Amino acid sequence: MNSVRTDLAVEAREMYCEKTENGDNGVRVDTKRIEDIEITTVDVLNDKGEERIRKQKGTYITLDIPKVTLYDSEDIEEISKVFADELSKIISKAKLDSSMTVLVVGLGNWNITPDSLGPKVIGKLMVTRHLKKYIPDSIDEGIRPVCAVAPGVLGITGMETGEIIRGIVQNIKPDLIVCIDALAARKMGRVNSTIQIGNTGISPGSGVGNMRMELSQKTLGVPVIAVGVPTVVDAATMANDTIDIVIEKMKGEVSEDSKFYSLLKAIDTEEKSQLIYEVLNPYVGDLLVTPKEVDMIMETLSKIIASGINIALQPALELSEINKYVN
Amino acid sequence: MNSVRTDLAVEAREMYCEKTENGDNGVRVDTKRIEDIEITTVDVLNDKGEERIRKQKGTYITLDIPKVTLYDSEDIEEISKVFADELSKIISKAKLDSSMTVLVVGLGNWNITPDSLGPKVIGKLMVTRHLKKYIPDSIDEGIRPVCAVAPGVLGITGMETGEIIRGIVQNIKPDLIVCIDALAARKMGRVNSTIQIGNTGISPGSGVGNMRMELSQKTLGVPVIAVGVPTVVDAATMANDTIDIVIEKMKGEVSEDSKFYSLLKAIDTEEKSQLIYEVLNPYVGDLLVTPKEVDMIMETLSKIIASGINIALQPALELSEINKYVN
Amino acid sequence: MNSVRTDLAVEAREMYCEKTENGDNGVRVDTKRIEDIEITTVDVLNDKGEERIRKQKGTYITLDIPKVTLYDSEDIEEISKVFADELSKIISKAKLDSSMTVLVVGLGNWNITPDSLGPKVIGKLMVTRHLKKYIPDSIDEGIRPVCAVAPGVLGITGMETGEIIRGIVQNIKPDLIVCIDALAARKMGRVNSTIQIGNTGISPGSGVGNMRMELSQKTLGVPVIAVGVPTVVDAATMANDTIDIVIEKMKGEVSEDSKFYSLLKAIDTEEKSQLIYEVLNPYVGDLLVTPKEVDMIMETLSKIIASGINIALQPALELSEINKYVN
Amino acid sequence: MNSVRTDLAVEAREMYCEKTENGDNGVRVDTKRIEDIEITTVDVLNDKGEERIRKQKGTYITLDIPKVTLYDSEDIEEISKVFADELSKIISKAKLDSSMTVLVVGLGNWNITPDSLGPKVIGKLMVTRHLKKYIPDSIDEGIRPVCAVAPGVLGITGMETGEIIRGIVQNIKPDLIVCIDALAARKMGRVNSTIQIGNTGISPGSGVGNMRMELSQKTLGVPVIAVGVPTVVDAATMANDTIDIVIEKMKGEVSEDSKFYSLLKAIDTEEKSQLIYEVLNPYVGDLLVTPKEVDMIMETLSKIIASGINIALQPALELSEINKYVN
Repeated sequence: MNSVRTDLAVEAREMYCEKTENGDNGVRVDTKRIEDIEITTVDVLNDKGEERIRKQKGTYITLDIPKVTLYDSEDIEEISKVFADELSKIISKAKLDSSMTVLVVGLGNWNITPDSLGPKVIGKLMVTRHLKKYIPDSIDEGIRPVCAVAPGVLGITGMETGEIIRGIVQNIKPDLIVCIDALAARKMGRVNSTIQIGNTGISPGSGVGNMRMELSQKTLGVPVIAVGVPTVVDAATMANDTIDIVIEKMKGEVSEDSKFYSLLKAIDTEEKSQLIYEVLNPYVGDLLVTPKEVDMIMETLSKIIASGINIALQPALELSEINKYVN
Repeated sequence: MNSVRTDLAVEAREMYCEKTENGDNGVRVDTKRIEDIEITTVDVLNDKGEERIRKQKGTYITLDIPKVTLYDSEDIEEISKVFADELSKIISKAKLDSSMTVLVVGLGNWNITPDSLGPKVIGKLMVTRHLKKYIPDSIDEGIRPVCAVAPGVLGITGMETGEIIRGIVQNIKPDLIVCIDALAARKMGRVNSTIQIGNTGISPGSGVGNMRMELSQKTLGVPVIAVGVPTVVDAATMANDTIDIVIEKMKGEVSEDSKFYSLLKAIDTEEKSQLIYEVLNPYVGDLLVTPKEVDMIMETLSKIIASGINIALQPALELSEINKYVN
Repeated sequence: MNSVRTDLAVEAREMYCEKTENGDNGVRVDTKRIEDIEITTVDVLNDKGEERIRKQKGTYITLDIPKVTLYDSEDIEEISKVFADELSKIISKAKLDSSMTVLVVGLGNWNITPDSLGPKVIGKLMVTRHLKKYIPDSIDEGIRPVCAVAPGVLGITGMETGEIIRGIVQNIKPDLIVCIDALAARKMGRVNSTIQIGNTGISPGSGVGNMRMELSQKTLGVPVIAVGVPTVVDAATMANDTIDIVIEKMKGEVSEDSKFYSLLKAIDTEEKSQLIYEVLNPYVGDLLVTPKEVDMIMETLSKIIASGINIALQPALELSEINKYVN
Repeated sequence: MNSVRTDLAVEAREMYCEKTENGDNGVRVDTKRIEDIEITTVDVLNDKGEERIRKQKGTYITLDIPKVTLYDSEDIEEISKVFADELSKIISKAKLDSSMTVLVVGLGNWNITPDSLGPKVIGKLMVTRHLKKYIPDSIDEGIRPVCAVAPGVLGITGMETGEIIRGIVQNIKPDLIVCIDALAARKMGRVNSTIQIGNTGISPGSGVGNMRMELSQKTLGVPVIAVGVPTVVDAATMANDTIDIVIEKMKGEVSEDSKFYSLLKAIDTEEKSQLIYEVLNPYVGDLLVTPKEVDMIMETLSKIIASGINIALQPALELSEINKYVN
């Protein structure tokens, strides 16, 4: 999972600008609501915008979705379609015609449930490139060639995800890449209820087990659309925020010049990591906070994402036709 | 998972008495070390002891085990054997001969990884009752009849675990019951590194999804040995402890009569749950903190527990013979 | 899995009587077609009928369903509803009101994919008994209390399925039992494309690993409805039928009085099992013939069966409401 | 799974030459026995040998192993070591030093249990390349860099396995490739009891779902060692062989000039496929014959293969050290 800092444009927007902007400052922000889904579109238009919001030039769409259960096929289908509409908008910027090949990449570790979203999505995709290539007569004219891979993570393969993807891209020569990844959120409120789509690729995390190489047009020579869903909060983040909340609370109660106020600031800085260490020891940096039914939730989310991608990549087909192809 | 409060006798001991005691106060505590495993035996001898340590009369053995990985079969075997020795001591108090039947019960929810320990153990047991009953000539004289069940949880079956087990006990008439359960720990330090064995049965948790009926000689008419391993910390517990640590830290720094000291106490009491709510919202009370590789860890722990139970229940067999029987 | 011989009433009907009968001979047979689903209802009315068709007095409904894929939610829903209608007819004979409790039993071995249908169905049911009992206000008036269990098989538990179910029935006191089981079919053509519903309970298979105790009103004191789906052909059956086909073929070509004809009959009798042994050695009697994608197929079938049972047991609810309850 | 025809050199040897040969005819065959394991080494020395045995020039080692159960760690370890010795012999021909990188490729479809051997092995390997590359100080000098991938199958990815592997090879530049694949056997007797090692790469199967591109030094520019285990018999093969056995049996009983003998030959040729069709319809060509506990067996075999590869690739380590690295 990528580190929280760079993940959610919508959080960046909250930190740095207004709920809606007209673009004069290099950032355009629009929000709308479809059924229970709130959609925020952040366009970073130029260097001015990049600086302001600390995100690369590009478009970032965030969907806040309601909770759904695995067997609630109606809601799942409805959310999939709204997600597909937004994804289509970003894909359209890449100017593909229906004969162009798309490679879908499911990032993450299938052995760690909340990180298994990407691989699970791959298993539910409508994969067609081999049919188009080897038995074209078996499928409709208008069907787009789609291929898919879950490359695994450094700890499982011993190889950089980027090394594997680059190798595949060199041989398959897709016209567009769509990456799916599970993210770490800062707030529990975002976990499993936010889908982010962006067209600036995926930035690297850090340390063994995370990606080091950026996946983007710059590194792969093909446009890269990233779909991310926050599925966990890092326990260290949670402990950190808990401490902040306590300290903030108390700061409110004492005068800024009191010697105690400086004590609070002291904790805030030097001693905080020590406190966090006391709480998490011996697992520091390796703990996840997840809802109990995380397995079920990953099933549901992967169904929504996969179905949305299938719809967006195969505009010529009905969902019911698509589902007959999914193995 | 049962609530943390009543779970670990070793924590109760830490709270209420010395590292070793001779029993004069109704509690005998012995600690010893075998290889890397520290073993603490707490005997609650009488009412005086019960009151002192807030645990029922009986024996509680706690093993602190080192971390092992799934494929490290040597360490797994070694820990299994030490665990088997301690389990045998408690079983011996039940005065079974080798012809008597044991029912092993794997408690917990197989859909929630850190709660799936019990069901996973059941899948790795040497089950023999049907062989003894239907094809006795197929197995050695000295083999004890063992049967096993993972009854599931209230949310899956719609039935109390106690109702299911009582029904089975009435029909199978075992001479001893061994229950395995995943517990919630108070400290991360205990998670996946402590095995507790007790002969006073299992106390109920509370609320839908937890057990309401005690599993014990009193409710089932058969001696009940409980094997428990803490596999998670509840996120609310962690947030709570984090706040405590901050407050403790600061209490140390201000004089007890300062108006700020009373502020700290105020937070400590009224406002704490409000703070916790802010941190965990909207998942309050439903969040688990686990190490990333919890799936792998459950595999390893279930191997250790199952293997230990197999050894303790089949004293006539070598581990290598036992493993040929496990399906 | 139960042995094929007694399983499919529709095969018995094929062997012993006409495609439709008016009941004069103790058997009434009706066939109808809904969409792509062919439905055959066989009523065995009296002893005369029992003798004729070699099945107990009762009603047997067989649905021949088209192949569907896992993500084809529309077809799955449609088949579920047709199945639910037929199941409701048989349930109605048990004269339940909506307050009466139903216990659903998922038979079979979850470690053997084609035998895991029953346990998989249990995981997809709407279970409500605990809600009705402990938090009645949380759910609608008209919701029926349903509980469910997958008891496992003799080889896993060391206990007769019948012993476990009887114990549960004694404690839970349900008003109706619905059992789901995977069957062995005689012909590949039936595998995964036939659903049978009957109200005469489940007859025992034989040998360790199979049931010995009948599950029926006679043994459990509660009406028992059985839902069965053939998911495999036993390899020995297939080899046997292959040999028959060859021999039949040749019998057609030689005159009945030729010495070769008697040779064919000889093979047919004495030597056949020897031939089968040669083919299957060393796995005789332990081999299954399944389609490659059996895992996917079990997922799909369990969805259809579970959804149909949910609909039939909760007439007061829409499928979309039901699915919100399924965990 | 690859087609049976080209798979087992030991079967080719049985068909075309003696149990042992000295090489005069271009083929050297040696057999030996270690514990319960029979080992046959077939060296195809030159064109003469190639023609005689219909296999490419190279070395083919076949181990006939006894049945073992999943928890029988002693036997698993012993077989792993014997397999490792033979694998080492073939690796040694590739003249690697300990600093050279090996890529292990787990072929097959993880959604089809008997075809999931390769992917399962990947999950149990000691993967080290990333450690050597990013944190070399964390591991011993003598540890060889190993990376691993399970590329999936055409039906899942829409890409040729060969295209994916070639891309990875171009980027990672390994010095040796080891491929693991599940094979189809001709006889049940071979299923799950034979391990074949060869140094001539993997030949393509045919049709969608199978490989089209050969994996070999010729296509990848790196030596390719193939490890194969037959895990199924195709149902059509079994039906075919069943018919043959019947016909052979009868041919023995009638004189070659009888008109019936020609009838038998007729069936043998034209009508056979028609008969097979009658038996397998509607699943023709898509049916597998497997032992009931195939899931358990794949677990066990993948443990043996993975452990053997780990030992052979890391001569500097004890198995116990290796297992501490396996995640």
